[in-house]
Amino acid sequence: MIDARSVSLLLMLSMLIASCVLAQQSRPRADSGYERLQAPAGPPLPAPLLQELTAIRDAALTDDYAYQQVAHLTENIGPRPVGSPQAQAAIEYVAAEMRKLGLEVRLEPVQARHWIRGAESAELVEYPGQAPGSTQKIVLTALGGNHPTAPEGITADVVVANSFADLDRLGRQNVAGKIVLFNVAFDKRKAANGYAGEAYEEAVVYRALGAKTAAALGAVAALVRSVGGAEYRLPHTGGSSAADIPAGAVTAEDADLIAHLSSQGRVRMHVILTSQTAEEVTTFNVIGDLKGSEHPEQVVIVSGHLDSWDLGTGAIDDAAGVAVAMETAQLMQQLHLRPKRTLRVIAWIDEENLGRGHLEYAKAHAAEMGQHVAAMESDLGASHPLGFRAKITAEAATRLQRVLDVLRPTGANLILVSADSPEADIEPLAKLGVPALGLLQDGRTYFNYHHTAADTLDKIVPQELRENATAMAVMGYALAAMPDPLPR
Amino acid sequence: MIDARSVSLLLMLSMLIASCVLAQQSRPRADSGYERLQAPAGPPLPAPLLQELTAIRDAALTDDYAYQQVAHLTENIGPRPVGSPQAQAAIEYVAAEMRKLGLEVRLEPVQARHWIRGAESAELVEYPGQAPGSTQKIVLTALGGNHPTAPEGITADVVVANSFADLDRLGRQNVAGKIVLFNVAFDKRKAANGYAGEAYEEAVVYRALGAKTAAALGAVAALVRSVGGAEYRLPHTGGSSAADIPAGAVTAEDADLIAHLSSQGRVRMHVILTSQTAEEVTTFNVIGDLKGSEHPEQVVIVSGHLDSWDLGTGAIDDAAGVAVAMETAQLMQQLHLRPKRTLRVIAWIDEENLGRGHLEYAKAHAAEMGQHVAAMESDLGASHPLGFRAKITAEAATRLQRVLDVLRPTGANLILVSADSPEADIEPLAKLGVPALGLLQDGRTYFNYHHTAADTLDKIVPQELRENATAMAVMGYALAAMPDPLPR
Repeated sequence: MIDARSVSLLLMLSMLIASCVLAQQSRPRADSGYERLQAPAGPPLPAPLLQELTAIRDAALTDDYAYQQVAHLTENIGPRPVGSPQAQAAIEYVAAEMRKLGLEVRLEPVQARHWIRGAESAELVEYPGQAPGSTQKIVLTALGGNHPTAPEGITADVVVANSFADLDRLGRQNVAGKIVLFNVAFDKRKAANGYAGEAYEEAVVYRALGAKTAAALGAVAALVRSVGGAEYRLPHTGGSSAADIPAGAVTAEDADLIAHLSSQGRVRMHVILTSQTAEEVTTFNVIGDLKGSEHPEQVVIVSGHLDSWDLGTGAIDDAAGVAVAMETAQLMQQLHLRPKRTLRVIAWIDEENLGRGHLEYAKAHAAEMGQHVAAMESDLGASHPLGFRAKITAEAATRLQRVLDVLRPTGANLILVSADSPEADIEPLAKLGVPALGLLQDGRTYFNYHHTAADTLDKIVPQELRENATAMAVMGYALAAMPDPLPR
Repeated sequence: MIDARSVSLLLMLSMLIASCVLAQQSRPRADSGYERLQAPAGPPLPAPLLQELTAIRDAALTDDYAYQQVAHLTENIGPRPVGSPQAQAAIEYVAAEMRKLGLEVRLEPVQARHWIRGAESAELVEYPGQAPGSTQKIVLTALGGNHPTAPEGITADVVVANSFADLDRLGRQNVAGKIVLFNVAFDKRKAANGYAGEAYEEAVVYRALGAKTAAALGAVAALVRSVGGAEYRLPHTGGSSAADIPAGAVTAEDADLIAHLSSQGRVRMHVILTSQTAEEVTTFNVIGDLKGSEHPEQVVIVSGHLDSWDLGTGAIDDAAGVAVAMETAQLMQQLHLRPKRTLRVIAWIDEENLGRGHLEYAKAHAAEMGQHVAAMESDLGASHPLGFRAKITAEAATRLQRVLDVLRPTGANLILVSADSPEADIEPLAKLGVPALGLLQDGRTYFNYHHTAADTLDKIVPQELRENATAMAVMGYALAAMPDPLPR
């Protein structure tokens, strides 16, 4: 997932794609918060290291290990919401695979909320021009953490708000007792032009905070227009701040329908959004170490998150991320490489839920943060990688230019430096000063499938996944094998 | 709908789009069954008629009547399956609108099957790599006329067939007692390149005949890979020949999943596809006549079909067709035009069901066929029109060139002549010798939405709908006002 905390990071996509299109002659966008470093290259890499990185790159570009992992996780195991049998099976599967790769594997326990989707359906029961005896079906899905309706649902008038300011203007007198629809469209044109992060950021605040805001004015439920670029009657789920009213997402088409009918007269809706928050469960981050030959205490993390939403099978979000991290270790084994620092593969849990996996890790390993040399994650899908987004110093970026040169033939040789963590799971580490790098994919179609039933294996292009594995493996190994740790 | 009977007609799209791309210099495809007539133009149109056609064109290109009709039919009324309250409301609404337009309106009764969708869900209950205690959801929808499962559904092993020949090879010993999945992919590349009809034709035979064929070998249910170009976990419904086993369509993603897992081992599936075939209902073709000033007995039909599938709201299939036919009459009223022959607007019923609407019309009006000068229908969506497809003589095509010249600025000035009827509802008339013309839209995205929940108002671009109304109105009026009837 790209959650509300980290969406601003996606802003870089705008600049990035613009800079690609403009053959890298464009100036960085002053308002993006990012700076495209045209950094001078640091000293050349030692010849043996350069040779190793080149060998990793060439092997990764023809390897299918990552794809096989994604296929197994998504097709044989399936959706992996926290607390599900599939999440547990995935944890065990990844741990077993890591052992086969020669890693020292442990499961680190995480206490997590166990939220279970229930029945979800809705219909308009009163609206202008209604055919006698008919209703109109509304396609929707519950947001994560939804406060459930009773099994028989609720029926209330709908009020449409086009912004939080609009809701304020309507005020309690027009909102209390009603179902609020936040009808803020994901800007498909922006996304298609490379500004997917900006489009997402503009819309996702309503998913994150809509229910809480509407509840404060007495609403009985809050619906958000799905945050995403699809036009196939597809609802997008996602996290929502805890509220004491039901929270769902209707499709873009259904949001249009409700808005149009509401502009003509009274619209009354019946909504069933049951769900259950069961007892907390113990789940696990899967952690596999390839111990460093010289400085085993120094750690470089390569990672993705293993849990997924329940609607699709979590291929682009984020089996792909886990798989390219696993492939980094697989290439070490295949090429008989052992870096001087410990290369740690992590399959995070609970990223889509409350983020307890990464919070627990940061807490349990607080004393070792000084020895965490770098942390990497891939959680923006599996399309062609353009390079990296990174919370690192300018000096560190300079130091990485020679590594990026190795990736140049794959196109993944850009680095965008930001003040914020590039990904959610490595954010606690980034906040504690650990250099943090995220893979930066071309995200223009990511939000068409993100958090929907259509996040499935077929959305992954094998060659593009190989490019992502290449970027993760080359950079991950470089960070673990460079003469000196990355400066912080 | 584009049903199995008429799919071959879509072949022309290939040639058509190719000919557009090649600036109309390409030779007709010898294998298409169509001939792009580079006909010499007939004699000039009488000056007053040319003036009227030009006025109709210019008025239609700025008019929103058709869009308002589609909006009302799809958003205020909604899905219009035969026998539903919405279908009846639509019949009454269109009849009332036609009266407002000054037409002589009558409802001609049609006895129709009343098929009602029920519960539809499925899951894989056994498959290679299955997480203990889990199942995998399969997204599917029942095909029209589905023979229902019991409420609790059926559970059986799945066998995948990639063609009818493949099913034959498998034979009764591998098929009896099993659920057959026909996994024949809609060719998205062909469709994107303008060969949508060919792609549809190749795949739709499995939807039409799959259940019947599988039942003959003892299968307990038949599923087809959805026939359409979407990649958003969207099932496509459609008609299926009567069989005594359940018939459904799974999404492309689910077909992939089942095929992949089946290649690894045993796959067992639980399917619920209830539905009901209730008592036959009396429904109606809506027929509105603008009586001809000189030859009221001579009739020119402009039409679309009013019923729709139940999953979406039937915007492109086919509220758009009905609306552009209605707009033809609206423009007559607006411009105070009355052609010498009768212009008959028909909103057909039952096109998506058993086609009883057009069968009944042909039967009831059999004695008048000699006086049916021409019949037009629009039933390929609402994208930019390229011209017409027509079952007419070469001489008739020549005669129409001067009318096409009027449409030249809209781009809808091509005519493709075929041996078959261009649309299903006018097929019985075409068979009886009535010149038959269909609007020929750019169909490259049509099958992304066709027969799905995503066939909704937003799929219609208002300016493109205006172009369709223009083509229907100019050609419809010309046929009704030309000095002589179109030669047959």
